[in-house]
Amino acid sequence: MSVLVVGSMAYDSVETPFAKVDDALGGSATFFSTAASYFSPVNLVAVVGDDFDMQDIDFLYHRNVNMEGLVREKGKTFRWKGRYLDNMNDRETIYTELNVFEHFNPVLPESYKDSDYVFLANINPDLQYHVVQQTRHPKFVAMDTMNFWISGSLEQLKRTLSVVDALMINDSEVRDLSGEHNLFTGARKIQAMGPKTLVIKKGEHGALLIHNDSYFFCPAFPVENLYDPTGAGDTFAGGFMGYLAMFDKIDDAHLRRAVVYASAMASFCVEAFSMDRLKSLKNEDIEIRANAIVQMTHVNL
Amino acid sequence: MSVLVVGSMAYDSVETPFAKVDDALGGSATFFSTAASYFSPVNLVAVVGDDFDMQDIDFLYHRNVNMEGLVREKGKTFRWKGRYLDNMNDRETIYTELNVFEHFNPVLPESYKDSDYVFLANINPDLQYHVVQQTRHPKFVAMDTMNFWISGSLEQLKRTLSVVDALMINDSEVRDLSGEHNLFTGARKIQAMGPKTLVIKKGEHGALLIHNDSYFFCPAFPVENLYDPTGAGDTFAGGFMGYLAMFDKIDDAHLRRAVVYASAMASFCVEAFSMDRLKSLKNEDIEIRANAIVQMTHVNL
Repeated sequence: MSVLVVGSMAYDSVETPFAKVDDALGGSATFFSTAASYFSPVNLVAVVGDDFDMQDIDFLYHRNVNMEGLVREKGKTFRWKGRYLDNMNDRETIYTELNVFEHFNPVLPESYKDSDYVFLANINPDLQYHVVQQTRHPKFVAMDTMNFWISGSLEQLKRTLSVVDALMINDSEVRDLSGEHNLFTGARKIQAMGPKTLVIKKGEHGALLIHNDSYFFCPAFPVENLYDPTGAGDTFAGGFMGYLAMFDKIDDAHLRRAVVYASAMASFCVEAFSMDRLKSLKNEDIEIRANAIVQMTHVNL
Repeated sequence: MSVLVVGSMAYDSVETPFAKVDDALGGSATFFSTAASYFSPVNLVAVVGDDFDMQDIDFLYHRNVNMEGLVREKGKTFRWKGRYLDNMNDRETIYTELNVFEHFNPVLPESYKDSDYVFLANINPDLQYHVVQQTRHPKFVAMDTMNFWISGSLEQLKRTLSVVDALMINDSEVRDLSGEHNLFTGARKIQAMGPKTLVIKKGEHGALLIHNDSYFFCPAFPVENLYDPTGAGDTFAGGFMGYLAMFDKIDDAHLRRAVVYASAMASFCVEAFSMDRLKSLKNEDIEIRANAIVQMTHVNL
């Protein structure tokens, strides 16, 4: 099955305590597509400026990513610059230039409208809603969001939440969106807003899947050479949705496996700048890492 | 097998955003013994003042805890008062009155010296070292510590680390003790100081066991009614050591199971003030919770 993703393509400049890079390929749709493409065909919707070098995404053409929904507009591509602090968990934004992304109005090509798996990356919740309205009977719609929309566009966000199956969110966002300190109480409140499946990303502390009443916890792979966390969340989402679409089955067992593969993909992402590690993986690398993650929680009482 | 524990007995006053309690039974040795006693006999070494009400620990006598090493001295019992902030992770100390604990000099009764399993709760590392010197061929010695000793008594702490098998520590202490931001790199540095087994406690984010080169991650049970985190770390240690002593086997499989039972015990601890939930558990309650924790990471690829 195909996975539809609507999100950003960007050039990111990143500084970490150890290294820096300028204008590297980034954006939620790019990270997502790269990761998902290891599992399923991808239909991408994004916008870039006329300064965008299409050769930067040559590898996506070779990885079964359909670019029919990629729009090239007059103007500059979305640019972001950030700096990671010593602990690599906190980051500060140095600048955000929305450029052509400012008036992004995602329109699905006709051939995308029957996509069974849909991922709404972190964009304005009104646009996310508008994307869902353009699809025909998708089997599983997942979305991302961020504190900016939770605090500034809560009603719009709630409308989008009411039409999706899954929300991928980090733990502080669960607290902001639900108004609850307790993660589990907060999660139940969010489930009542619509999505019965939550994937709560906790960075180095792993990820928690809540599917109806079932909890599944997946640790993060112990990465020692943490190089650049940018894109890890979208890469995680790409692994998750790509895996689900591959088996075309939404049940507890498949969702759990999807979280393991999502964690594996995210762990590769952070080992290099941009798509550098992600775009050259072998299936065998992914299997080895997913199995290592499972081994980390293996126990029989 | 018996477990020897050397630590504190105290009266704790605790405020949380939801409730408060004054002079409730506390102390590392008390929480540890209560938890360990569900698995193995315990030999306790601690000191209390002449204001200590021995009826407060009646339940320990009935739970196979040997009190031969409990010293009652003229003066007041160790008292601590703390307040938990909104998120229940951060706390501030309102006062610490060491009282008779200030000159605690643990002396092992002859009958304790052959204990095979030894736990050194968080006390001055010189005292911890002195306790190890009094034992005869223990099979497994574990210790706790805290930032106060890491920053103020590092050389003494390193001497103690060189004679123990396991260190139970939280994630920020790993960073302080190793000087490494990366938890896994830091853990390897600490292993080089002596203990080949580390149990890194991460509160709501679970616990990481590192045994030689093997990693095991155990999630925290999803507690919704988090009432009072005081004593959770010592309760965790009690479950861990009690379980190991029960089977008298130190290998990867038993260490992993011990961490699961440790997490189960800690989750009961935080559901009430003091020993209130811990002291009235049924073995069945513990089994159900340990199995629920294992179920939370169950996945087959």
